[in-house]
Amino acid sequence: MAEILSALRSLMASHSPPLHALIVPSEDYHQSEYVSDRDKRREFVSGFTGSAGLALITKDEARLWTDGRYFLQAMQQLSDQWQLMRIGEDPSVDSWISDNLPREAAIGVDPWCVSVDTAQRWERAFAKNQQKLIQTSSNLVDEVWKNQPPAETNPVIVHPLEFAGRSVAEKLKDLREKLAIERARGIIITALDEVAWLYNIRGSDVSYCPVVHAFAIVTLNSAFLYVDKRKVSSKVSSSIQENGIEVREYGAVSSDVALLASNQLDKDTGLSSGRNDVCETGTCEAEENNNDLIWVDPASCCYALFSKLHAKKMLLQQSPLALAKALKNPVELDGLRNAHIRDGAAVVQYLVWLDKQMQEIYGASGYFLEGKGASKKRSCTDSWCFFMLLNEPSRETMKLTEVTASDKLEGFRATKEHFRGLSFPTISSVGPNAAVIHYSPQPETCAELDPDSIYLFDSGAQYLDGTTDITRTVHFGKPSEHEKACYTSVLKGHIALGNARFPNGTNGHALDILARIPLWRYGLDYRHGTGHGIGSYLNVHEGPHLISFRPQARNVPLQASMTVTDEPGYYAVGNFGIRLENVLVIKEADTEFNFGDKGYLSFEHITWAPYQIKLIDLSLLTPEEIEWLNTYHSKCREILAPSMDKNELDWLKKATEPVSA
Amino acid sequence: MAEILSALRSLMASHSPPLHALIVPSEDYHQSEYVSDRDKRREFVSGFTGSAGLALITKDEARLWTDGRYFLQAMQQLSDQWQLMRIGEDPSVDSWISDNLPREAAIGVDPWCVSVDTAQRWERAFAKNQQKLIQTSSNLVDEVWKNQPPAETNPVIVHPLEFAGRSVAEKLKDLREKLAIERARGIIITALDEVAWLYNIRGSDVSYCPVVHAFAIVTLNSAFLYVDKRKVSSKVSSSIQENGIEVREYGAVSSDVALLASNQLDKDTGLSSGRNDVCETGTCEAEENNNDLIWVDPASCCYALFSKLHAKKMLLQQSPLALAKALKNPVELDGLRNAHIRDGAAVVQYLVWLDKQMQEIYGASGYFLEGKGASKKRSCTDSWCFFMLLNEPSRETMKLTEVTASDKLEGFRATKEHFRGLSFPTISSVGPNAAVIHYSPQPETCAELDPDSIYLFDSGAQYLDGTTDITRTVHFGKPSEHEKACYTSVLKGHIALGNARFPNGTNGHALDILARIPLWRYGLDYRHGTGHGIGSYLNVHEGPHLISFRPQARNVPLQASMTVTDEPGYYAVGNFGIRLENVLVIKEADTEFNFGDKGYLSFEHITWAPYQIKLIDLSLLTPEEIEWLNTYHSKCREILAPSMDKNELDWLKKATEPVSA
Repeated sequence: MAEILSALRSLMASHSPPLHALIVPSEDYHQSEYVSDRDKRREFVSGFTGSAGLALITKDEARLWTDGRYFLQAMQQLSDQWQLMRIGEDPSVDSWISDNLPREAAIGVDPWCVSVDTAQRWERAFAKNQQKLIQTSSNLVDEVWKNQPPAETNPVIVHPLEFAGRSVAEKLKDLREKLAIERARGIIITALDEVAWLYNIRGSDVSYCPVVHAFAIVTLNSAFLYVDKRKVSSKVSSSIQENGIEVREYGAVSSDVALLASNQLDKDTGLSSGRNDVCETGTCEAEENNNDLIWVDPASCCYALFSKLHAKKMLLQQSPLALAKALKNPVELDGLRNAHIRDGAAVVQYLVWLDKQMQEIYGASGYFLEGKGASKKRSCTDSWCFFMLLNEPSRETMKLTEVTASDKLEGFRATKEHFRGLSFPTISSVGPNAAVIHYSPQPETCAELDPDSIYLFDSGAQYLDGTTDITRTVHFGKPSEHEKACYTSVLKGHIALGNARFPNGTNGHALDILARIPLWRYGLDYRHGTGHGIGSYLNVHEGPHLISFRPQARNVPLQASMTVTDEPGYYAVGNFGIRLENVLVIKEADTEFNFGDKGYLSFEHITWAPYQIKLIDLSLLTPEEIEWLNTYHSKCREILAPSMDKNELDWLKKATEPVSA
Repeated sequence: MAEILSALRSLMASHSPPLHALIVPSEDYHQSEYVSDRDKRREFVSGFTGSAGLALITKDEARLWTDGRYFLQAMQQLSDQWQLMRIGEDPSVDSWISDNLPREAAIGVDPWCVSVDTAQRWERAFAKNQQKLIQTSSNLVDEVWKNQPPAETNPVIVHPLEFAGRSVAEKLKDLREKLAIERARGIIITALDEVAWLYNIRGSDVSYCPVVHAFAIVTLNSAFLYVDKRKVSSKVSSSIQENGIEVREYGAVSSDVALLASNQLDKDTGLSSGRNDVCETGTCEAEENNNDLIWVDPASCCYALFSKLHAKKMLLQQSPLALAKALKNPVELDGLRNAHIRDGAAVVQYLVWLDKQMQEIYGASGYFLEGKGASKKRSCTDSWCFFMLLNEPSRETMKLTEVTASDKLEGFRATKEHFRGLSFPTISSVGPNAAVIHYSPQPETCAELDPDSIYLFDSGAQYLDGTTDITRTVHFGKPSEHEKACYTSVLKGHIALGNARFPNGTNGHALDILARIPLWRYGLDYRHGTGHGIGSYLNVHEGPHLISFRPQARNVPLQASMTVTDEPGYYAVGNFGIRLENVLVIKEADTEFNFGDKGYLSFEHITWAPYQIKLIDLSLLTPEEIEWLNTYHSKCREILAPSMDKNELDWLKKATEPVSA
């Protein structure tokens, strides 16, 4: 670590102009949340492996900013040379720089790894002290990273209409109509999931996200895909070209954006004859002369591409694809529902298996019984015990860890139709590890399962027909009264949010409090948002909507046919963590009245797996909450039964028996 | 009305430059919500009497913008010449002007009657079409208003320390410390309640608000009060001057602001010797040379005064007095609690009286019984009936109307210690009138009480020790199932909000949804905010915090020792209205845990009057809600009992008997 920092500091000193500080963001050229190994630059320099964070290196300091999900993990992973900056508690990176670095300081960043919004916010903050944001001409981290993995060359595949639900031609037509309305003649699409969604293609360039490293440019006449051509088979290439899309090399996007800016991109494409086909209404043609703007989403477009455009000819607003992608079509919704049924079956099969293991290996009382369950628990505190373990190989091989358990869970999922891999690194966490919100167990260091501790697993998979994300928290021994009280409060918040009805126009920020109120009653809370959109065989975290305690800069109301998770939690540092998560589909609510003619919305739960009754203090639930729980459990049984064998079904029936207060 | 508009249009045409449109805001020179009769210019031109609204007069149109509380009332009051513009549904006034008036149009407004924030927002919108906001040199409405009431000359009184709880010297010291921190050398205070609060003075220039038409300027050295000197007796004048405040004529504020801008105001005051007394910490002195800003609150300062300042020497942010005034001191809190006990006693006495009248005059089944109650109800649809009425004077004099009933309520309040008048026009409304959110009954047109209809009263008083505001909704006959379901949903929201605990830093916008969720379940809602601060013998509506579905431009979190109302409602147009309102004091919550070390807050109800059990569908309440209701009712009985006679106490005991589901 120390060598990396000193190598970077040398490069900063020899840079022209010399840099007082270097910012290393988490993001790749596409502002992705999850990035390929080659793009894990912030992780490489800091050692912190979380998905969100930003590193700042100055002449004699190194600081890492991250959010509440990662405070604990960052403290564990950062070396002494690094100082943790807590987002929401400590000054933001821009105000820290403005207040702590010298007047006229030069702060470097790779302009491909930072969004327009972020770069401009920094520039405004730096201006106070005449500091300057410098776009480095190369990525300094890449220069010092000797064993940086090479760029991926995984094949691009076509995502068939039976799963996508809407053709590329239809999507392009919709997009061009939006361009015409906004008087734009083209749009630069940089978000990987937007490119994949628009062109109905998928890939495997980024772990967990079935996307392709690619850019797109769409004009009223033409459409381009910028991708490493080695990834595109001739068959896939033909399929793409059939939709009037020209495939160009990934690196060509830079010069093509410059051509687009000077209105020279469309020439010589031979594709403009298709124009009238895609703009039947005639509005495109009529307004052609006014259509002079280039649409760029400042939250996802990198500063490097933005800098090639003319300031006065830009339409800086959210990409129309963000909302279009979030509003799932009926085929996608059915796919998501089906994927979640298969996924729920895998989760229940895992719980059945885990319950048996916990009883057999550790003598736990199990999922259903509350009796003390540590009869066979190993307590290895002296050398004698260690000696015994060494001499008891059968016991050792039977050991269950956070990693071996989550591998088994993946195994159950892998048996399901259309399975294509996990949708994010499984959070499989015992006791105190469950309090690390985005904990990712490593084989060498992970904890053993423990019948006296809470076990939290937050996991999901990619299926061809949909992406899943579910969290359950369980205990195989005797949970403490405090653990039960906390689980019950989290469940109450989870039910209150999932059960809400609300008028059109309501945003996720307004709903967030519903999940927190039962926790706030006791002075408890959690340091993360409550819900995110989820993709259709795409990213597990998908905007543009959110359910969060932070007001959104972009106020996108929740709308029918969006997906969103409902995942409150509570984390007792050093002790345990609780989170419950279902995926919900937003639908029109069948309310008795319709005050204000706004139309009302509600949620449909599409995740199916039981809540552990043993962890619920039923006396704290209202009759309404109990009714909801019983109804959900009864649907769970009904929906999952066809996927269960006799033994599993017996377990599921028991787990979903109706309860009363 | 027609003459007023044509007279105004003549003045607009002869104005230099000629005006394409004239904006007539509701506000006075102090941006007050409630204004004196002389200042009701918008009401004079439009005929609409609501407290909020804005009139726009163009060459051939007249439009009135108002908010959801007043849609119904405005439709009833506006003549054919006026078109109602619904805030939140129709385009805002600035975008309407920008889109509908000609390029380079001149739009006039009296710069004393518009805030800096508003004027600047308009200017930005107008700029799109090169339109211009013109500050008229005189108020055109005043010129055409022949019988405009004269300016008030009511006496200024000193608000004694036993009620104010904090001396003027202490308040000035706090204020000057805030000026020093913000590097300001002076502040212009234009909000009437801020002037009254800072100088511990009260008056009666505006109905319902015990304020004085006055401005204040406070610098690090001096303090000025600008007021019509005829209002200030020599005794009061001496008392004011004892605090180092110089009294100047109201009109002198204009030239004094100009002097302040050029740093010439403090000279020759002879008061600067007091400076070191008020700034003991020494910080003021040390930073004197940097203190070059004039603090102006752009939301309350008029554009006229703002225009006299130098743009670069202004500190444009919320007045520090807004929060200081909202954070009640212990004396104010005790005063508010006591005032609300006396006020609650008056409300209960009114209910006892009303219950008896409704039974005696109309043969209603009464407050407690559900039986059909219209046995003596008059149905006067033919001339015979009318003749009978004329010949039955005793019945006629016994007639109860919205106005005679509310007069009686005022009468009960008037018997209470420290009573000084009402805090706003009593909303006393029967059946369909209760759906007019800010209904104000007039003697000539008001409805008669009706045992078959809901009766809603929203009222409050000014007492020397506190301001009150309470709403109850009652039925003296047989409420419909729908009325009961709606009342119960409103009550559930009222309880959910009043019962909430939340961490420090939470703003009212986040809490607002708690009051709506039970209504949203049925597709019901209400078109007003859920809570406002309340003054200490000051304005009944007081900022800077709010509980509203609209995000606040100024994000002021709720804080301990603030007051706030809890008043959800539901309004079935043409049928009935329901609202329940208590005043709450925000206090530190005694939570079991304190996650994040933020400290948690909760509410203390200080309003005491029963909810009508007959209107509650108890089967819809949770056990927690029933427990809350029983506890509140039991406290009600305990707290009000000492103020009740035997008959009243019997009624109160019956009204507050514990219930079960």
